[in-house]
Amino acid sequence: MQQAEARTGYHVTSLRVRYAETDAMGVAHHASFLPWLESARVEWLRHFGVSYADLEQAGLRMPVVELRIHYLAPARFDDIVHVRCGMAERTRTRVRFIYTLFRDGQSAPLAEAETVHCFLDPGGRAVRLARESRHWHLLQHLPLIDQAPGDAEGIAAY
Amino acid sequence: MQQAEARTGYHVTSLRVRYAETDAMGVAHHASFLPWLESARVEWLRHFGVSYADLEQAGLRMPVVELRIHYLAPARFDDIVHVRCGMAERTRTRVRFIYTLFRDGQSAPLAEAETVHCFLDPGGRAVRLARESRHWHLLQHLPLIDQAPGDAEGIAAY
Amino acid sequence: MQQAEARTGYHVTSLRVRYAETDAMGVAHHASFLPWLESARVEWLRHFGVSYADLEQAGLRMPVVELRIHYLAPARFDDIVHVRCGMAERTRTRVRFIYTLFRDGQSAPLAEAETVHCFLDPGGRAVRLARESRHWHLLQHLPLIDQAPGDAEGIAAY
Amino acid sequence: MQQAEARTGYHVTSLRVRYAETDAMGVAHHASFLPWLESARVEWLRHFGVSYADLEQAGLRMPVVELRIHYLAPARFDDIVHVRCGMAERTRTRVRFIYTLFRDGQSAPLAEAETVHCFLDPGGRAVRLARESRHWHLLQHLPLIDQAPGDAEGIAAY
Repeated sequence: MQQAEARTGYHVTSLRVRYAETDAMGVAHHASFLPWLESARVEWLRHFGVSYADLEQAGLRMPVVELRIHYLAPARFDDIVHVRCGMAERTRTRVRFIYTLFRDGQSAPLAEAETVHCFLDPGGRAVRLARESRHWHLLQHLPLIDQAPGDAEGIAAY
Repeated sequence: MQQAEARTGYHVTSLRVRYAETDAMGVAHHASFLPWLESARVEWLRHFGVSYADLEQAGLRMPVVELRIHYLAPARFDDIVHVRCGMAERTRTRVRFIYTLFRDGQSAPLAEAETVHCFLDPGGRAVRLARESRHWHLLQHLPLIDQAPGDAEGIAAY
Repeated sequence: MQQAEARTGYHVTSLRVRYAETDAMGVAHHASFLPWLESARVEWLRHFGVSYADLEQAGLRMPVVELRIHYLAPARFDDIVHVRCGMAERTRTRVRFIYTLFRDGQSAPLAEAETVHCFLDPGGRAVRLARESRHWHLLQHLPLIDQAPGDAEGIAAY
Repeated sequence: MQQAEARTGYHVTSLRVRYAETDAMGVAHHASFLPWLESARVEWLRHFGVSYADLEQAGLRMPVVELRIHYLAPARFDDIVHVRCGMAERTRTRVRFIYTLFRDGQSAPLAEAETVHCFLDPGGRAVRLARESRHWHLLQHLPLIDQAPGDAEGIAAY
């Protein structure tokens, strides 16, 4: 899984394409990729010490407010897909994750994606995390990726 | 839509098969049928004067505890599917719905199904509805279908 | 449904949020919106005389190659959602659709989205439609929306 | 994972509940269980030497024609779920799988299920496998579980 190997601040989550995720074109339906991104960021958080389930129970939710994805090649039933995820931005009102998806054994990506998340309090209101809050403290210790110019262009080209 | 016409106590909900609901066999994936059953019972309730959304906000939830389905013919992308739904049983601890699915213009059913639901209180505990409760009063006024021997056999044959 | 009313080149598709489409935040999961966009463009095509099912059987497929979506407000179980769709770009190698989603009775949008599609031949290869082809002839007769500066900015701001 | 440990002819597939699989009750939606059963039988086949993807490319498909499931306890976001699967019946026209689902670390099952599958040829027709066919040869070498009387009653009680 050389092509998706972890670089600093990244984590790779692997999964198998389910039959239920395919469509009548014989490939994974484009909406199936979104739960894969979701799993990848949950595993990214866990890898760096944060349980999203715990965060939620502690009153912080991070819904997707923006999503961009480029589909570059099809994924098929039973393919192993590697999702490389990293946190590209973090402020007291939002975080941004970027993703590159690979089919096992291939170096050309299947897809590139980006999600932006805001913070909701238990009442469902978007909030700015207080500088001294436990949640901000937690998030601040997560690694930000070092976006190379090429990566930045990749995102900008969306 | 003669084949799915409403008989006493039944209500028919119609929908289009979405591309996202198909799979690599070129037909609707078998799991896609479950949200159709769900929509059909929500619309059945609405047709007979009960909003499931309101029920839930009033503290009653009716999760599926048993489900049986026979798939008889495939549904394809863009097909119009009619789901005929009726309530076949109702006690203070559970209700049972039965469903027959038809493709528009065809008299042979696509599928036959049955779901059993219990009642949960807001804390997530299964409850027996009190005889004098508002919820039981509401449910008691919903029509039960008059299962003909043929129907009964159909269900028993599952 | 004033807020989503059809303007020239647009078509509005309406749907009910299914329970299966909600998530543990109590709102429609962000991935649920993608099949709604899909239904909206299938209905847009049908409204303007083209059946996507027929297109596919005639050998043309139009998979999503890019998708952007801004989530602005949550949709909840049983909400009626209106999806206003229009074709914003059309070349011999791709088409682009834009979407605005509204909750019934509200003028502030739930979400704004954009999808880009390429053309695949039956063998799954991306193709440039021949100028004299039946498919290009068909697509050329579909209305392009007249993007106002405001709309264009909206999209650009993604 | 004692409670789901493999007995002869069984195989256990484990997965994490995805956020996308939850619903507004805060638990995994009942339809989410079906792709889990599907993954479990694909992994069961792989464990015993058969790739369902290869089977399909060789012209054999095994769609679900009957499905029964009892939901016994809720699964929640981020839970690890173990699905124990076995083949309970095999004839030249159908196979039957049974499943028991467990939450990690718990001995009481989450759900019990059963699926029946027929065989389709590439043209989509239900077929009886020829005694000398390669597919029948392949299926005959898969282990059948030894249903104890208790298991048999469990299934009958559905």
